[in-house]
Amino acid sequence: MSHTQALCRFLAELHDAQLPDAVLARTEELYLDWLASALASQGSHPIPLFERYAQKMGPATGPAQIIVNGASSSAYFAALVNAAASHLVEQDDLHNSSVLHPATVVFPAALAAAQDLGKSGRELLLAAVAGYEAGIRIGEFMGRSHYRIFHTTATVGTLAAAVAVGKLLDFNEEQFINLLGSAGTQAAGLWEFLRDAADSKQLHTAKAAADGLLAAYLTADGLSGARNILEGEQGLAAGMSSDAEPSKLSAGLGSRWALLETSFKFHASCRHTHPAADALLGLMQREGLGAAEIAKVETRVYQGAIDVLGRVMVPATVHQAKFSMGTVLGLIAVHGKAGLTEFHQWALGDPAVAAFRDKVSMTFDRAVDDAYPQRWLGRVTVTCVDGRTLHGAVDEPKGDPGNTLDRGQLADKFQRLCQFSGARTPAQASALIEKVWNLRSAVSMAHWL
Amino acid sequence: MSHTQALCRFLAELHDAQLPDAVLARTEELYLDWLASALASQGSHPIPLFERYAQKMGPATGPAQIIVNGASSSAYFAALVNAAASHLVEQDDLHNSSVLHPATVVFPAALAAAQDLGKSGRELLLAAVAGYEAGIRIGEFMGRSHYRIFHTTATVGTLAAAVAVGKLLDFNEEQFINLLGSAGTQAAGLWEFLRDAADSKQLHTAKAAADGLLAAYLTADGLSGARNILEGEQGLAAGMSSDAEPSKLSAGLGSRWALLETSFKFHASCRHTHPAADALLGLMQREGLGAAEIAKVETRVYQGAIDVLGRVMVPATVHQAKFSMGTVLGLIAVHGKAGLTEFHQWALGDPAVAAFRDKVSMTFDRAVDDAYPQRWLGRVTVTCVDGRTLHGAVDEPKGDPGNTLDRGQLADKFQRLCQFSGARTPAQASALIEKVWNLRSAVSMAHWL
Repeated sequence: MSHTQALCRFLAELHDAQLPDAVLARTEELYLDWLASALASQGSHPIPLFERYAQKMGPATGPAQIIVNGASSSAYFAALVNAAASHLVEQDDLHNSSVLHPATVVFPAALAAAQDLGKSGRELLLAAVAGYEAGIRIGEFMGRSHYRIFHTTATVGTLAAAVAVGKLLDFNEEQFINLLGSAGTQAAGLWEFLRDAADSKQLHTAKAAADGLLAAYLTADGLSGARNILEGEQGLAAGMSSDAEPSKLSAGLGSRWALLETSFKFHASCRHTHPAADALLGLMQREGLGAAEIAKVETRVYQGAIDVLGRVMVPATVHQAKFSMGTVLGLIAVHGKAGLTEFHQWALGDPAVAAFRDKVSMTFDRAVDDAYPQRWLGRVTVTCVDGRTLHGAVDEPKGDPGNTLDRGQLADKFQRLCQFSGARTPAQASALIEKVWNLRSAVSMAHWL
Repeated sequence: MSHTQALCRFLAELHDAQLPDAVLARTEELYLDWLASALASQGSHPIPLFERYAQKMGPATGPAQIIVNGASSSAYFAALVNAAASHLVEQDDLHNSSVLHPATVVFPAALAAAQDLGKSGRELLLAAVAGYEAGIRIGEFMGRSHYRIFHTTATVGTLAAAVAVGKLLDFNEEQFINLLGSAGTQAAGLWEFLRDAADSKQLHTAKAAADGLLAAYLTADGLSGARNILEGEQGLAAGMSSDAEPSKLSAGLGSRWALLETSFKFHASCRHTHPAADALLGLMQREGLGAAEIAKVETRVYQGAIDVLGRVMVPATVHQAKFSMGTVLGLIAVHGKAGLTEFHQWALGDPAVAAFRDKVSMTFDRAVDDAYPQRWLGRVTVTCVDGRTLHGAVDEPKGDPGNTLDRGQLADKFQRLCQFSGARTPAQASALIEKVWNLRSAVSMAHWL
């Protein structure tokens, strides 16, 4: 039995009673965190473009809800818009060793299909678990070489979204094999946009969720796909990876819940900046250091951080600033935080942040690189104005499984994100939070929002 | 100025008066040939799946027409279904040196957008020329290494379709640059499906046309894309090619009309089988040879043919048989033709064809490979039952620019393809042919079909 086949069999046989309580509970938390990210982007460019596209090309109304505007559409367009929306403010979750943002592709597709099909909250949760478990393993399988050029959340995200919808459609092993074929052959998304601060990141997640859903609905109707799209000679790894490891596809199925390893984002920036941000923050607090006392910060990082962040020198937009190591550390040093509000107030216009940005460098570090992507180590060396050299280190950035956010902290983050965009009043947000904590009891996801 | 920029400037400035009559006329011929391919697939799996998907996810009616069922939808879904339909029967056009099937991605997107925007026949033709000229050059740029793993019509097709729609939207240079970014980052499509006779080929063209259209509409509304998606360090060539040649992107812009180099398909099979099919047919006619007198056929081919055709041993479906060199040569040898009717009657069930199939082999030939993809040389060595060894050769397979089909032959092909599916009566087909020969005079493409 191939690794792909083993994965598909697991997905087909996965059932509700198998899920440990901790997995169910964490999936609700990830769902809340995802909703927060979508709501926070209400009204922000380029999300209205996707809303208008759905209006123009889709039906006037439909069974699936669009989070940012309260409208409805077919499942396809709801997945498209909600996935674009939930990846804009850089607050959505991340799985370390796969370098995949699962929520922003899995939940939009799963929610849209669950609403279309009238599925329950428990069924939505089960589908999401399937999407996470498959997506994370496929991301790990594709390896670091893939992520150097390709945005894994876009490419692998298409398969993760497809699997979640396939689970809602009660696919058997054979259907999951065909589904991976049809989803995998649509996998796309290049990092090139980053250096231009272009809008592709939201296009990527929008298309991944929508394409994955499309693959699942067509598979349900009888479309066949390549049986070995992951491992085959003209498949995904053959075309887009040089270090793929097939055994990752089936490792620990049913015993290891990869979903539990997913990190919540605390800072509102690219996750590659978080280890250094936490290391700097810890060092400054420990030493009682102010920004003005710092002459230089050397962050010692893995190659992936350089590949993604190394393109951004002077950020041109708030979104691009989230990929600027210097800006993130500047916000931390000058304002003590790098949340959504700090980014919008100070990431571009504050001379103190800009000045600090120019003090920050990134250096490749062999030991940090060896640990990655299983562990995202933060290492900074600070040279003080008075000549001292200080070291800061963090092994589990805030939000990582060993340093996670609890339900109270997630509710706080939800409130902050709703407040940022004005998408919900505090009272409305509280009600929505309660609804999510009872997601597993929801009889039907139809009109859930 | 980069090659990408030069290409985008050319596309922005391209205007109707610039097009030689020969280009306008050939574009009408390519359009007719494309319509024939779409009509021929009416009712055949998997096209109804795409029709149902459009019905479920799109509006009940819309400005853009779906060729195979007479229904209408939004431009997005019309492009999706029409592009799936026109790539099923393996009769759509091909450009040699780019190994791109331009019609099946360019025309669905262009027609859908032209109908949506109420554009004229001349505007449709201009848009198609833009799509062909850009798509062919991008295909050439991506090189042979790309085609080894990726279905160029899927990947590059997304950009070709996008450009055609961008032209209908009157894009300037800047918009074309952004458009390539948003289309290029969606480029996907792997050959892996071939060995399983899976339905991905139609999914590929459907998605290429629809995704290209989506990229254009979003660009018109203000979505930005990577400025260097083709040549950049984390762009299309960096991720999916090892022999890309940037100069191909801008070679001969405005003087060389690459569209005129496009080949029409005569046989109803993968174009990689045509050179050998014509060489064998010529040899058999020259020598007055029957199938029973042939003991062995060695076809001497370029590597690309082995990559694509080498996966199919005993075909499981009629569509897969079109990628079986042995089956195609068997139809030629036993029945004298490899048209749609021959495929459906004899490709799978005829013992004489199956017996001949097993006599056929493919051998890599250095000289043939050196000429490819600029020239698709056909070379066969036949060993007769009586011991003689005979050689057949063709330098321009039927349908190539130097051996093209004239309007009469294209009209015949159109009639045959309509008859095959029953999509149009001969009289209806004749009327449609006349309409195409007057395409450049059509005031509006709205409700054109």
